[in-house]
Amino acid sequence: MVSFENDYNTGAHPEVLRSLLKTNGEAQTGYGADRWCAAAAEKIRMACQSPEADVEFLVGGTQTNAVVIASLLRDWEGAVAAETGHIAAHEAGAIEYTGHKVLTLPQHEGKLDPGELGAFLAAFHGDDNREHMVWPGLVYVSHPTEFGTLYTKGELSAIRDLCRNYGMRLYLDGARLACGLMCREGELSLPDLVETCDAFTIGGTKCGALCGEAVVFPRHGRPPHFINAVKKRGALLAKGRLLGVQFDALFTDDLYFRIGAHEAEAAEKLKGIFREKGIPLWLDSPTNQQFVELEDRQVEKLKEKIAFSFWEKTDERHTVIRFVTGWSTTAEDLEALRSALDELR
Amino acid sequence: MVSFENDYNTGAHPEVLRSLLKTNGEAQTGYGADRWCAAAAEKIRMACQSPEADVEFLVGGTQTNAVVIASLLRDWEGAVAAETGHIAAHEAGAIEYTGHKVLTLPQHEGKLDPGELGAFLAAFHGDDNREHMVWPGLVYVSHPTEFGTLYTKGELSAIRDLCRNYGMRLYLDGARLACGLMCREGELSLPDLVETCDAFTIGGTKCGALCGEAVVFPRHGRPPHFINAVKKRGALLAKGRLLGVQFDALFTDDLYFRIGAHEAEAAEKLKGIFREKGIPLWLDSPTNQQFVELEDRQVEKLKEKIAFSFWEKTDERHTVIRFVTGWSTTAEDLEALRSALDELR
Amino acid sequence: MVSFENDYNTGAHPEVLRSLLKTNGEAQTGYGADRWCAAAAEKIRMACQSPEADVEFLVGGTQTNAVVIASLLRDWEGAVAAETGHIAAHEAGAIEYTGHKVLTLPQHEGKLDPGELGAFLAAFHGDDNREHMVWPGLVYVSHPTEFGTLYTKGELSAIRDLCRNYGMRLYLDGARLACGLMCREGELSLPDLVETCDAFTIGGTKCGALCGEAVVFPRHGRPPHFINAVKKRGALLAKGRLLGVQFDALFTDDLYFRIGAHEAEAAEKLKGIFREKGIPLWLDSPTNQQFVELEDRQVEKLKEKIAFSFWEKTDERHTVIRFVTGWSTTAEDLEALRSALDELR
Amino acid sequence: MVSFENDYNTGAHPEVLRSLLKTNGEAQTGYGADRWCAAAAEKIRMACQSPEADVEFLVGGTQTNAVVIASLLRDWEGAVAAETGHIAAHEAGAIEYTGHKVLTLPQHEGKLDPGELGAFLAAFHGDDNREHMVWPGLVYVSHPTEFGTLYTKGELSAIRDLCRNYGMRLYLDGARLACGLMCREGELSLPDLVETCDAFTIGGTKCGALCGEAVVFPRHGRPPHFINAVKKRGALLAKGRLLGVQFDALFTDDLYFRIGAHEAEAAEKLKGIFREKGIPLWLDSPTNQQFVELEDRQVEKLKEKIAFSFWEKTDERHTVIRFVTGWSTTAEDLEALRSALDELR
Repeated sequence: MVSFENDYNTGAHPEVLRSLLKTNGEAQTGYGADRWCAAAAEKIRMACQSPEADVEFLVGGTQTNAVVIASLLRDWEGAVAAETGHIAAHEAGAIEYTGHKVLTLPQHEGKLDPGELGAFLAAFHGDDNREHMVWPGLVYVSHPTEFGTLYTKGELSAIRDLCRNYGMRLYLDGARLACGLMCREGELSLPDLVETCDAFTIGGTKCGALCGEAVVFPRHGRPPHFINAVKKRGALLAKGRLLGVQFDALFTDDLYFRIGAHEAEAAEKLKGIFREKGIPLWLDSPTNQQFVELEDRQVEKLKEKIAFSFWEKTDERHTVIRFVTGWSTTAEDLEALRSALDELR
Repeated sequence: MVSFENDYNTGAHPEVLRSLLKTNGEAQTGYGADRWCAAAAEKIRMACQSPEADVEFLVGGTQTNAVVIASLLRDWEGAVAAETGHIAAHEAGAIEYTGHKVLTLPQHEGKLDPGELGAFLAAFHGDDNREHMVWPGLVYVSHPTEFGTLYTKGELSAIRDLCRNYGMRLYLDGARLACGLMCREGELSLPDLVETCDAFTIGGTKCGALCGEAVVFPRHGRPPHFINAVKKRGALLAKGRLLGVQFDALFTDDLYFRIGAHEAEAAEKLKGIFREKGIPLWLDSPTNQQFVELEDRQVEKLKEKIAFSFWEKTDERHTVIRFVTGWSTTAEDLEALRSALDELR
Repeated sequence: MVSFENDYNTGAHPEVLRSLLKTNGEAQTGYGADRWCAAAAEKIRMACQSPEADVEFLVGGTQTNAVVIASLLRDWEGAVAAETGHIAAHEAGAIEYTGHKVLTLPQHEGKLDPGELGAFLAAFHGDDNREHMVWPGLVYVSHPTEFGTLYTKGELSAIRDLCRNYGMRLYLDGARLACGLMCREGELSLPDLVETCDAFTIGGTKCGALCGEAVVFPRHGRPPHFINAVKKRGALLAKGRLLGVQFDALFTDDLYFRIGAHEAEAAEKLKGIFREKGIPLWLDSPTNQQFVELEDRQVEKLKEKIAFSFWEKTDERHTVIRFVTGWSTTAEDLEALRSALDELR
Repeated sequence: MVSFENDYNTGAHPEVLRSLLKTNGEAQTGYGADRWCAAAAEKIRMACQSPEADVEFLVGGTQTNAVVIASLLRDWEGAVAAETGHIAAHEAGAIEYTGHKVLTLPQHEGKLDPGELGAFLAAFHGDDNREHMVWPGLVYVSHPTEFGTLYTKGELSAIRDLCRNYGMRLYLDGARLACGLMCREGELSLPDLVETCDAFTIGGTKCGALCGEAVVFPRHGRPPHFINAVKKRGALLAKGRLLGVQFDALFTDDLYFRIGAHEAEAAEKLKGIFREKGIPLWLDSPTNQQFVELEDRQVEKLKEKIAFSFWEKTDERHTVIRFVTGWSTTAEDLEALRSALDELR
């Protein structure tokens, strides 16, 4: 069945796979000390235009969020996130498991509002009881968000300024960063993230890798003894080369950016098809996650031909569903969707 | 350089790689709900001769130990291990990070002694102060151990009996299980482990996979809501197929057992070479980790030709070094070692 | 200065103090195994009309909430609370420190709305992604709430029914329970709590003890090995008698209820004074916490004569302040407040 | 029955009680911000001859150990202790609950040996695998130890030097410090501890308080946001005055030292009685814990008249039992013991 279920339902991009094959026989030291991790880190530093960036590789997104956030927070601090932020809603309490609270603020199409954040921080620091409360120590943003939306340069700068004023760190979860970087509306580049964030991730899993997230700590900002922190949380991969080889491939010949552009382009075509069929977008997402509202009976029928994700019920008779494009989305997939939508009438 | 550094320094076994290639384009549901995880679990149940076994797949060894042990322990309990047990010594405190103590007993070539374990448990339960102490709730054994040694059937049964008497669980870390199953001295089969343990792992990383450990919970013994427990600890892989496909390959045409046999056979040849050169084994390991003691100057010289691991200094002038055979160890590797040893004289 | 700052700013009620004096010289076993803890537990069982209740004593409120909630939750569960619930807002992340999330719902004068709770639970259990989410395992209510308000019998029953339907536990934080039991509007008795809750606390600190909270687990519901759980979290008091003697005194000759009645009566008089002076109550609290809104300049002036707590700014020129009555509040204190208010005009 | 069971089986010393009575009616701010905590801290600074010392008050010993150690350790570090150290053996895993390992070394009459500690630290830092291990970040010593023994000035200095060399902190658990300071063999004074340690406790519970431990952080060494750390771990007392008033009394007119001297003197008399009766001391403890070995049948008989603690079985027919003197031990108690021992013949 043609699938728009998510961007991690197929295996690795052919160029990533080719690198894995080519290097398979090499004997490499374990735990990330291999030459491929070194090479990939160097290529990422180049792409970020930042020789001072520390780059580390972990296996999965929730794992990465938990390890990095726990390493950046101090004992008395928590992480501020939108109520729909991945760490707040869909990581089974992984941040709380590290002993830190997630402090939530309202979401606006998945994003934090800098004004609301500022008001929250001012109120907290004006509260006499703050010794009885969790201190906001870090802001978590996802970019693109869980709704596919993007922060503007101005918004992220405003959040960064608040963080600096209040002695907080800014962490950006880039699980789907490739598409965020390459879509038409994307204002933020890798060098922008280096300038703005204290840490950010470059997601591999949703961009053609079998697994893997790169973490960038600008300005030599890697927490001390980070490998111990990773190991202690069960996140240190023995064959670290698996991550190094894949990220080396992703940052060779601009593959990471080509995949992002492909995802964005396929998403634009998807939007075109929905528009053409008179199906309203539930949200105007500029990236590879698209949300439309259909009648329940249409959802049932479409399901027979096309795989997608259930998002939420909006009323008794309507449901929002999500379509995601990925590195493996083809023109044929889009055509199959078009035909299936035709049959809904 | 020819490497005996460890059994995870090369990539995937060709048959595993072939399966990854063949299935790469398939769209599969994420998080372990794909058809390959299901198929691999079924094949492992067959190999275990146990239709009632629950089988789960995780990425790495330390991660698996922490998730499984935390899921099997109750709040007031800790895990008993030999002082050299992997969880006690080389996991950066990952068990303690779950909030549980590791209670250590002396090691005997890496193994727990059932008699000492029994005495410890009797003393604990005779102590009036046990409400102020951590209760031994689980016994952790590694098989093969960190020294390559193996439990006999009698030893493991004795430990199992103690566990049952005292209401404890028995967990076996099989990171290098393949070789333990297939070497000449190995008394324990997969069905034996099903009969004896409450949980055990079948290590993939050190047996030809890029990553991955299978966990077997005999008698439908998987802890409730195990996926939540995995996710909460950052250990749930998005492209779960990566684990499913690899374990499906490992349990197709007895590949897992063939690799184990290859490792054991290569280790026997290794021992033969050391014997032939008059180099004494520091320990009589029946599996793919071999330890020899050399003069420091010999170690320095050998290092130029052959990669191995430093183990420990025994005195001012001598060092124990470790050699490990893996799926990718070849006759040529062994020959290269023989020549390098010749030059030590 | 006359103080309405809170209900724990003076020492122990004279009858409690007298018991401490009288028993001071007795040699008693430590850690709660003394005869006074046993006697106090028995008296509480009598007051609860429940011979099957387990009763334990801890030192402080946040500590008790953390220990009890962690003991009642399973690994994959979190605690549901109103966003203003003490565990959500003012315990410095003590629940998250146990590794569990606090799931917040809107507050209505400090209370959870059973209808909203039901909708939340239905939505959660209808979500396909719940393996990636924290399961609601327990409902936390405070009674009186942080705003002094009370649950009705109907409301608490409705919450209890939801808990039973969804396999959850119901925990009631009774830090200020005495006043909640004895005020005019209080519908719920100790036997009602036994019938409704899986655990509840009988606060001592805010009711005339130097420290101490009793925890009642109806129907022999104490979690197994509870003392280990208490000790592990640093909450086991060596001279447990300190808690036993005090609770024994509080449950002798109805002292606990007399203090609650005194607090409620003093609060009614407080309300009368505010009404008389034309100062609007910000909230209609039936218990010993009262909230009024004043102009900032009035607040400044009043502060010179009377101690109270800042609650929140409502606009540029107004502030809500809190007055609390306690066991030691006297007619003179109330009169002093009346005079001070007169001077505000 | 006459009791030598422990030093916390009776209530508060009369002078402590008198202070509690005298201050009972005062309205004081909560959570340690009262004037008595301030006064007590100042008196302790005087006794320590250290105006730069930060002083904090907590309720109990295990709680204090856990809060302080967790605050002094960094994420990748653990605490080194003798295998019989309180945190290693008798705190139900409270340190592990904070996510940190206790690294144990052999005990010598309850003490760490500086030489063995030095060898352990040298070996750790020479190990290539230390990224997979828990870093020793703090040394925990108890003084007096769990066996009543004391560190010499030379021993503690040697440990302190190791800590400084390896970037570690030194923490001394003074649960029974009073007696350690005042007994004949005690070499270490409060100013010595200020000079040597990064943090140490002055135990109140075992020295005439109802509860309470003072923590001293020399050289303004209190960890930042310590109150949040205390609150987060459920250890912040609402009526903090309870601790302030008691420690103020203990450090008025040298009460703390008088109690310590009384305990030591009573212990000397105890030793004299055992010597006189020909009962061998199992261990030569200079402080208020004394250990003797008796035949089991003698233990049974003695138990009818005198309360003491079981320590350990030494063989089939002998048992070590512990006698402890406290602030409330009287000449009559000692006489009663003498008579009871007479009857054992």
